[in-house]
Amino acid sequence: MALKMFDLRGRDERLRFSPYCWRVKFALAHKGLACDFVPWKFTDKEALAFSGQGRVPVLVDGEETVVDSYEILRYLDRAYPERPLLGEGAAAERARFFKFYSERSLAPGIVRTILMDVFNTIHPDDRDYFRTSREKAFGRTLEEMHSPSQGLTMLDRALEPMRGRLDESEFLDGEAPGAADYLVVGMFMWARVCSGADLISNADPVYAWYQRMLDLYDGLGRNATRLVDVEGAYQNV
Amino acid sequence: MALKMFDLRGRDERLRFSPYCWRVKFALAHKGLACDFVPWKFTDKEALAFSGQGRVPVLVDGEETVVDSYEILRYLDRAYPERPLLGEGAAAERARFFKFYSERSLAPGIVRTILMDVFNTIHPDDRDYFRTSREKAFGRTLEEMHSPSQGLTMLDRALEPMRGRLDESEFLDGEAPGAADYLVVGMFMWARVCSGADLISNADPVYAWYQRMLDLYDGLGRNATRLVDVEGAYQNV
Repeated sequence: MALKMFDLRGRDERLRFSPYCWRVKFALAHKGLACDFVPWKFTDKEALAFSGQGRVPVLVDGEETVVDSYEILRYLDRAYPERPLLGEGAAAERARFFKFYSERSLAPGIVRTILMDVFNTIHPDDRDYFRTSREKAFGRTLEEMHSPSQGLTMLDRALEPMRGRLDESEFLDGEAPGAADYLVVGMFMWARVCSGADLISNADPVYAWYQRMLDLYDGLGRNATRLVDVEGAYQNV
Repeated sequence: MALKMFDLRGRDERLRFSPYCWRVKFALAHKGLACDFVPWKFTDKEALAFSGQGRVPVLVDGEETVVDSYEILRYLDRAYPERPLLGEGAAAERARFFKFYSERSLAPGIVRTILMDVFNTIHPDDRDYFRTSREKAFGRTLEEMHSPSQGLTMLDRALEPMRGRLDESEFLDGEAPGAADYLVVGMFMWARVCSGADLISNADPVYAWYQRMLDLYDGLGRNATRLVDVEGAYQNV
């Protein structure tokens, strides 16, 4: 039986923009596993009630239900041990740092750069929920939080360790991509789907890595529908 | 035959402040290897001529000479395979990121916080060399570069991924310290030896990790002589 994953969708059903869901999509492709992706909106809390919580990704594999992108990577390594993602021992311990680097170093700059684009990407049903929950978390309005000049400056600094690493190596995980790459690329896919903003200059070693990541698995990332591809997306609805 | 390492010294011979030498000292202790530390000054270029370059750490192990802190960690894993530091495969690939995180995320904030303390720590013979080379690299004077308020703000942001990781784990490498921890702690030892500045609030998860790191190997880090311990260090010489 094929795997099933609940996947955040936007105003157009093809817009799949969750950075956490993207981690899992790359991980599934890495393992060569087929999966049905079930479109889901922030406010479809009922649809996830069986999982005991209200956020995606949620992976369903027969009798097993797994929530949280990192836990799903762990589950995939246990259930499908070929082509390890996180690996074991020191490899697994060190992989964990990339989760926090992605969420706490890269995301803060990206969110300030693309926040109003994200707001424009989400389903109209989700707008009140999104605005209320995010404004509470940020302690300010979406419009105040959105500041591309500040965001890009923050991101530029946060990318420094990736620059050093990718100046010497094709992927964060070495000659072939692995969990470290997928944990990080999710944030770039989030920006890619929601926004036309250029986050990285094409002279940056991170840019070359990003292009390689987009090409993986028959262009899994490159072929994702972006808001800029959706007709009428920049008119008010 | 005992290992020998050339180790940067300051105005007092006990002041050993190189972040790169500290990485190796922790790595040697991790392996349980005895080593003679030879005090060296920036301007003692002749003493390192045999190594084909002019910087420390330089490790001499019988016929072998190894330069660069990361290469020394690799060498130690090859020559003394018990208790791996970097490990192999994905573990080794991921360890490399911590080098760049340490040097490119943490160091820029720390250097702005402690630079004039570093200048006060180095040997008087090294002052002209240090000022000239660093001012050229920074594109400004040491005094202009030194800005603790700016440095601590940069460091605070750069510590975010460590906070996430160390909130859940005793060490960056998990339940026991490893190369990731040593690659990072070198920067904190640099600050500790040269400066009385408090880089981390004691409510920070990074602070608890730092205390654990200082206690390792019979207090290797905690017992290091600091500039604040040296009589007369804050008088002009």
